[in-house]
Amino acid sequence: MPAGRPNVLFIMTDQMRADCMSGVGHPVVRTPHLDHLASEGVLFRRAYVQSAVCGPSRMCFYTGRYPHANRSPWNEVPLPADEKTMGHFFGEAGYRAALCGKTHYTPDPFGDPGAQPEQGFRRAALAGLETWELNESRGEGWLAHLRSKGYAEDVIADPFAVEMPTGADRKGPPDRDHSAYPTRFRREDSDTAFMTDRAMAFMDDAGDSPWFLHLSYFKPHLPIVAPYPYNALYDPTDSPAPNRSPEELERPHPFHVPFRIERGGVAYDDEEVWRQRRATYYGLITEIDDHLGRLFGFMKDRGLWEDTLIVFTSDHGEYVGDHWMFEKELFYDEAYNVPFIVRDPRSCADATRGQTMDAFVESLDVLPTCLEVCGLGGPGMPPALQGRSLVALLRGERPADWRGAVFADWDFRFYWTPKKLGIPPEKCRGWMVRDDRFKYWYFNGMPDVLFDLKKDPGELRNVAEEPRYADAVRDLRMRLLDWRMSNEDVSRVAWTYARRPGFGRDPFTA
Amino acid sequence: MPAGRPNVLFIMTDQMRADCMSGVGHPVVRTPHLDHLASEGVLFRRAYVQSAVCGPSRMCFYTGRYPHANRSPWNEVPLPADEKTMGHFFGEAGYRAALCGKTHYTPDPFGDPGAQPEQGFRRAALAGLETWELNESRGEGWLAHLRSKGYAEDVIADPFAVEMPTGADRKGPPDRDHSAYPTRFRREDSDTAFMTDRAMAFMDDAGDSPWFLHLSYFKPHLPIVAPYPYNALYDPTDSPAPNRSPEELERPHPFHVPFRIERGGVAYDDEEVWRQRRATYYGLITEIDDHLGRLFGFMKDRGLWEDTLIVFTSDHGEYVGDHWMFEKELFYDEAYNVPFIVRDPRSCADATRGQTMDAFVESLDVLPTCLEVCGLGGPGMPPALQGRSLVALLRGERPADWRGAVFADWDFRFYWTPKKLGIPPEKCRGWMVRDDRFKYWYFNGMPDVLFDLKKDPGELRNVAEEPRYADAVRDLRMRLLDWRMSNEDVSRVAWTYARRPGFGRDPFTA
Repeated sequence: MPAGRPNVLFIMTDQMRADCMSGVGHPVVRTPHLDHLASEGVLFRRAYVQSAVCGPSRMCFYTGRYPHANRSPWNEVPLPADEKTMGHFFGEAGYRAALCGKTHYTPDPFGDPGAQPEQGFRRAALAGLETWELNESRGEGWLAHLRSKGYAEDVIADPFAVEMPTGADRKGPPDRDHSAYPTRFRREDSDTAFMTDRAMAFMDDAGDSPWFLHLSYFKPHLPIVAPYPYNALYDPTDSPAPNRSPEELERPHPFHVPFRIERGGVAYDDEEVWRQRRATYYGLITEIDDHLGRLFGFMKDRGLWEDTLIVFTSDHGEYVGDHWMFEKELFYDEAYNVPFIVRDPRSCADATRGQTMDAFVESLDVLPTCLEVCGLGGPGMPPALQGRSLVALLRGERPADWRGAVFADWDFRFYWTPKKLGIPPEKCRGWMVRDDRFKYWYFNGMPDVLFDLKKDPGELRNVAEEPRYADAVRDLRMRLLDWRMSNEDVSRVAWTYARRPGFGRDPFTA
Repeated sequence: MPAGRPNVLFIMTDQMRADCMSGVGHPVVRTPHLDHLASEGVLFRRAYVQSAVCGPSRMCFYTGRYPHANRSPWNEVPLPADEKTMGHFFGEAGYRAALCGKTHYTPDPFGDPGAQPEQGFRRAALAGLETWELNESRGEGWLAHLRSKGYAEDVIADPFAVEMPTGADRKGPPDRDHSAYPTRFRREDSDTAFMTDRAMAFMDDAGDSPWFLHLSYFKPHLPIVAPYPYNALYDPTDSPAPNRSPEELERPHPFHVPFRIERGGVAYDDEEVWRQRRATYYGLITEIDDHLGRLFGFMKDRGLWEDTLIVFTSDHGEYVGDHWMFEKELFYDEAYNVPFIVRDPRSCADATRGQTMDAFVESLDVLPTCLEVCGLGGPGMPPALQGRSLVALLRGERPADWRGAVFADWDFRFYWTPKKLGIPPEKCRGWMVRDDRFKYWYFNGMPDVLFDLKKDPGELRNVAEEPRYADAVRDLRMRLLDWRMSNEDVSRVAWTYARRPGFGRDPFTA
């Protein structure tokens, strides 16, 4: 690669599970281009998001800070105006930093009087990123594209409606029972196809100036409907059975049963439903993979492949029936463990190309990694970044003090389940820690959850109440306490400290 | 009182201990006017600040939020521009909200590009408060007053220098070995006298419009020097001996010994020193009390006494030799327990006048109390207040769910001691919980501290390592965990929730 600073392509899918790549052994879904990316980079199998909800998970990626620090722990909660994002960091460093796709960002009316959060994320790009193309589920650019391609207005008004075999168009918002049928837009006109085209156009437009592009696909997020042939690419009879056990419903955590009702999990009790939806979900992932193949080919043609740091991940996973659930949330691995591939083009990363690593990764690590690869260490503060650069791992080093656990933080006051259970808003907070051996969920007034991952990797049996795990529970609570104390938001403190490390005169030296 | 909204007089001293009032049984210091205030209001004996450092303690009082939420946990750390203070709340409600004295506020350059934190608090009033008079240890207004009274320029340049018996003026910053000698300004020209005069002038100036006045004295903060006769009001031979034991130095916490060197505690090993400094410290408190007597008389003359809510407290205490320490910090009661008197003029508070209460109070309670007394409930968000109004207690009710413990939070990276001990900045955080039975300090990488207050009310013997206290330590750690989880900053979350309490359709109702 040239001596200049590399470009950055930060690709995010929405609601894609970590296990849905052929390169990690999935029995059905095929992702040859992601596998190729992994073969030239590093695949991290234990990458975790800090929230399994779109908005807060993304704000962690974008700010490099935990939800409690960036203070946006749920969708539509404004990201405070003083939070500094990837867009700010790269923009200030002279990069052309742009967005192509989705952010779920909500602007902050406090500290930024011009912000209009009522208009929501559809009207505002992520702070600091140029809005090259916006697609918060259905962007105006994509809809205009459909119109230009001659689609009827009723298709544009409801693009994820499907073509029913009866020939009757389904109207209104797409429900979740049509996963077998194709969308009315053609494969070459899908949102995934369009965003990929726009990403390529951006790369051409950026020319020789260094760029940071956040390519953020809306899929495989629900509605689980795909254009032909992806709706029919995989045979539902091949879909692997959900990871769930009768015990989960027989001795449930008090939150589980109402929450699975609220989030649509009950539909997945029906075998026909989970078989078809899984098949279509896999089809949507292969659709993304196909377009990434196009994109990677384009980059190679343009000579960008060896100039560009590529990070591929997802904002969170999807249960598609695991644990009797749909969507994400709670703290199971299907929701929090995400695909995570880094291809660092520099020769210093050659030693690890094609490796799969088990080091724990958090979403917070993406920003410091991108900054270090681009030689942008020591960026201005605040905020104080809470992640850790992966560059040492990419070089083949294994720092002895690498993290031994990952953490997550969930404010669930906006759901209906706590209202049904009588949990007041201020008690709606849960924390999770996952290390090599255990997954532990701590709530503020609800029973604990503990899984012994060595015996129960599928997280099917809550052993928090078993006396033989009392020591483990106590230790894991201490990990949460230490985590929290070690990760206060010190944005202003660190900024002040950088200017004034001492206070008065040193009494210990002459 | 009239039907209108009461005025608020929020009086704060700097570095005054809770035990230094005659009304609570101090053997030496006389505070007849504070005792009078208590006789007409409620004295809270177990009021605790959330930080024993000037700046962060004040930011907790002003914002009603813990240091981790308002993100200003040490002096000179800017209070984020989006934090809402007493000044904002009362100003927006139509009050004339003003400052007379000290705040230790540092403006925020992030989110407020005009802020110039390098100039420090001397140039900026507390956000939202009109600067009626500023006195961050030595305000320009007070110095101009000294000049107008004919003091020589060298007195004005160094006002806390003392008149040595040799007749030689001491030059440069006052050291701590001259507590017996009087300042060169007369009692009627002291900062305490001047600020009191200015408070009275404000009340006249405000006239009939409702006002909120923060009268904030710099004393009895060091330098421990007082004008005649306060320097000689109390006989050093009457000073009570420090609360300390040889065991504290024989089996010290690793932080204690270097920190007492850093903070000047070693001087207090000398009996002559602690006797004199305690005597002068008491003199400074009686000086404040004398001026409060003038102020209260003025308010009665003007008909303001029955119209005004008065809160009297201090930003933190002072060791004056206890625990072999000078100044504040660490987590002993001498530093965190503060004087706290509330006089609510309304008839609903008549039932409790003259009472002393043991309910735990935190500094965060002042703002919600003032708001409720003035009928300003439900103020706009963010921020989300974390204290609790004391009004129910003032009415004689004892809410069953009143807090059973108080908490504190200390970021100590700016001191020299952690550098000497090799503690990196990000590990410089300590949390404290104090309930009826125990005081517990938790550090991030240093040994715990536990005091059994039933057996050891003076906090002289750390029993954290004793096996019989293992259960207590475990329980207290859980209290810290629950405290922290229950007190995340939800400023944006609560604001969003107030507008959108649910998410999608309620699945539990038809």
